Amino acid sequence: MKIAISGKGGVGKTLLAAFLSRVFAESGYSVLAIDADPNSNLAATIGFPQPEEIAPISEMSALIEERTGARPGRGASFFKLNPKVDDLPEKYSLKYNGIRLMVMGRIKRGGTGCYCPENALLQALITHLLVFRNEVVILDMEAGIEHLGRATAKAVDKLIIVVEPSRRSIETAYRIDKLAQDTGLHNIAVVGNKVRSQSDTEFLISSLPGFNFLGFIPYDQALVEADISNRPLLDSSTQIITEVKNIYHALLSTAQSSEATN
Amino acid sequence: MKIAISGKGGVGKTLLAAFLSRVFAESGYSVLAIDADPNSNLAATIGFPQPEEIAPISEMSALIEERTGARPGRGASFFKLNPKVDDLPEKYSLKYNGIRLMVMGRIKRGGTGCYCPENALLQALITHLLVFRNEVVILDMEAGIEHLGRATAKAVDKLIIVVEPSRRSIETAYRIDKLAQDTGLHNIAVVGNKVRSQSDTEFLISSLPGFNFLGFIPYDQALVEADISNRPLLDSSTQIITEVKNIYHALLSTAQSSEATN
Repeated sequence: MKIAISGKGGVGKTLLAAFLSRVFAESGYSVLAIDADPNSNLAATIGFPQPEEIAPISEMSALIEERTGARPGRGASFFKLNPKVDDLPEKYSLKYNGIRLMVMGRIKRGGTGCYCPENALLQALITHLLVFRNEVVILDMEAGIEHLGRATAKAVDKLIIVVEPSRRSIETAYRIDKLAQDTGLHNIAVVGNKVRSQSDTEFLISSLPGFNFLGFIPYDQALVEADISNRPLLDSSTQIITEVKNIYHALLSTAQSSEATN
Repeated sequence: MKIAISGKGGVGKTLLAAFLSRVFAESGYSVLAIDADPNSNLAATIGFPQPEEIAPISEMSALIEERTGARPGRGASFFKLNPKVDDLPEKYSLKYNGIRLMVMGRIKRGGTGCYCPENALLQALITHLLVFRNEVVILDMEAGIEHLGRATAKAVDKLIIVVEPSRRSIETAYRIDKLAQDTGLHNIAVVGNKVRSQSDTEFLISSLPGFNFLGFIPYDQALVEADISNRPLLDSSTQIITEVKNIYHALLSTAQSSEATN
């Protein structure tokens, strides 16, 4: 299963990606988590001890050319070899607590401009990655999914839009949903985050009629304090872990039902 | 004065841009606010009644060519006419409560890919806009400032990085600071947002030693409730307005002192 996570900046995409990775790994899945947001830090959120040691995907172009005979940016149709999750080179991924992580890479110097070649590379990777039944790819995306090409969107099994109880995050959710539908990605679900009360839940449900909610993650001050004191986030909140397990089960059951109907 | 506002997604860039625009306008400045973040909504935050009526900057290219003889994307040096804040065409900006607003534009259809031409246009606009003593341009940026070219960075008088009490927002601040310095933008200041306690303030100050803090905006539940009930945000919190006025005065005094030393 390939899952992409998007939503407005700050709603908790990285947090959900990290917690979901943990829950899938603990359930016996091989997890490949990909940090595709240059402004987030999935490695640190998962708790990787040396996150800066991971070579970014943006430096993979030489490798892709070597293994496939294709120069990235010249179109995905040039790829001859389909990479497998298990077969990704160690250099471009690190493993920690059963989670293999790749990072898109950050722009290292100011003024260098366009980030699109890196996105093309990510697209090729997502599109051509072979994922088996016991494997899951979890993509922590930028706000917006505009860099997901049509082919990539078809390769993603599920897009999760994270929302929080704020009008702006709802607007972004509608925008992402529209972009996704345009791109041919129709398997979309929503997760509410930072939910403090029943009225927050009701606000989210009434603001997004017709959307499929996978779950509602509570706001937990323990997580905020763990962050500020630099303690491991994934161990900081049993409330959140419990809800993310529910989301995991909801994901599996929708995946099975769509397999059954396809 | 040209002020750019950046910071991690969700920290409150758009909120600060909106409140600062209000305070500058009420103090007699001509304010041009530019929404340069495709995933935010400055118009709605300021309270524009029909935000979707503003034609985006991305549609200005024909106009720029007509007025300057230059095709956007062929480099800023081709521009012959310097646009003035007062002289910007009504079609591409709306005015409300003394604030003129331009929007960068959103990507309308999924799968269209690269956003860089729009950024080039914005760069040209920022670089060549003539701003007089009683005028201010407030740019609500994307997280990260990678699309600010070297020339644009020199045209910006002040970069404000918004942070909240979270480790990720601090990391993003360091990243933005580095990118800005690389690009030649050295006049950088920080604003703390969503501050709930004295220990939040201390966390921010101790996490960013050597940074110049313009102020600390308190977390105010009244603002959150105004957002959820769709009431005007700028009228929702006297606490926030008071602190943004302090930030406004801090901005003016640093601008004057840098004029005096230059």
